Amino acid sequence: MSDFNIGFVIFTGITQLDFTGPFEVLSRLGTPPSISVASKFPQSRTHVVAKTAQAIMSDRGLGIMPSCTFESCPSLDVLCVPGGAGVVEALADGETVEFIRRQGMQATYVTSVCTGAVLLGAAGLLEGRRAATHWAYTDLLPLVGATHENGRVVRDGNIITAGGVTSGIDFALRIVAELAGPDVAQAIQLAIEYDPAPPFDAGHPDKANAVAKALMVQRNEIAHAAIRQGLERLAVVGRV
Amino acid sequence: MSDFNIGFVIFTGITQLDFTGPFEVLSRLGTPPSISVASKFPQSRTHVVAKTAQAIMSDRGLGIMPSCTFESCPSLDVLCVPGGAGVVEALADGETVEFIRRQGMQATYVTSVCTGAVLLGAAGLLEGRRAATHWAYTDLLPLVGATHENGRVVRDGNIITAGGVTSGIDFALRIVAELAGPDVAQAIQLAIEYDPAPPFDAGHPDKANAVAKALMVQRNEIAHAAIRQGLERLAVVGRV
Repeated sequence: MSDFNIGFVIFTGITQLDFTGPFEVLSRLGTPPSISVASKFPQSRTHVVAKTAQAIMSDRGLGIMPSCTFESCPSLDVLCVPGGAGVVEALADGETVEFIRRQGMQATYVTSVCTGAVLLGAAGLLEGRRAATHWAYTDLLPLVGATHENGRVVRDGNIITAGGVTSGIDFALRIVAELAGPDVAQAIQLAIEYDPAPPFDAGHPDKANAVAKALMVQRNEIAHAAIRQGLERLAVVGRV
Repeated sequence: MSDFNIGFVIFTGITQLDFTGPFEVLSRLGTPPSISVASKFPQSRTHVVAKTAQAIMSDRGLGIMPSCTFESCPSLDVLCVPGGAGVVEALADGETVEFIRRQGMQATYVTSVCTGAVLLGAAGLLEGRRAATHWAYTDLLPLVGATHENGRVVRDGNIITAGGVTSGIDFALRIVAELAGPDVAQAIQLAIEYDPAPPFDAGHPDKANAVAKALMVQRNEIAHAAIRQGLERLAVVGRV
């Protein structure tokens, strides 16, 4: 039985938890020791793909090593693109956008977490589709031809997009359930003790208080403006 | 105002989400651009500490770069030790246990996620204390002189321990609330859109179905036995 290839695209300035959350879940389908050996799901391989073999730095200063490059990456069955402030530079990088486009055209599932949706869009993969993204960036989706849908995980055909950062964990458990069945997904949820108990109920703009919202929006303003400008620049040169 | 130093100890075979979850939360206290500039909390620095400067590999194959070594790491105000299958080798490594002991003796907060509690214990830091750990490893706590307490985050004096893997996110938000106040913690929770909606209610052994539990326990048996043997070996040589 041939391998099932799951690939995460990483780049300088990613929000690492957009990637590391679903990586922890989806890599548990792999070998060995794998929960999925007990299911009918084929063994999977998880790839961490970057432009070069060098470590990339997250937007909060965590260095992460890729396991392969755009050149050496196999054809992916699941393509997953995380977000982060570095989406600005990734958008402007033709090779990154072209890699996402090429893999996305043939993948069984085309997915993103957080502002990774903007990169899927810049690669032409969200045209006419419904999608999720980080709550503070939903206005960017129409710039790539997509419609924002409320929801922590949104599915439109083979496109599965998640909201901000931690929604990637919920997203990945849904992917596992689809690929390997609910028992395997629940075994992984149990293994990572995902029985969340946040100390506050502030994880969504409908729930957070005004002070928390102001602090967060202030911090995100620069990143938001930069991604919007990046998309507008691409539109001018006809690449979106 | 002097820096406030938060350090995560990483080693080969960590469960990366034990570390990357709280890293994402706690690194948002740092500079720049930092949510905490709006609070009275001093600027903090987040360190990723390993024995050497080389990348370490997680138990699921993710390569992570340290930002400093045991030798170059400053005195930590918050020490955080994640867990994973690699706890077995870390336990047997005198330098790693000694680093944790030395930093833990002077840190303001001594913390762990998942089976990282076993390493705190091996370093002599949990003697007579109440602690949390991954639900499948609670029987190991008495081997290091600690008492298991049910709870996703358990505090006993300056020792704050979290349960399995994803509990590190809840744990880190509580640390931020303590350090910088609830508004900053809520702003970070909102920024990472932590409004969890797992597709199943299977994240705790009291809730998971029998099939999921059997799949998970089967996969964990080898790691569990190896950590127990490692602790018993240390007890024989009088190091625990």
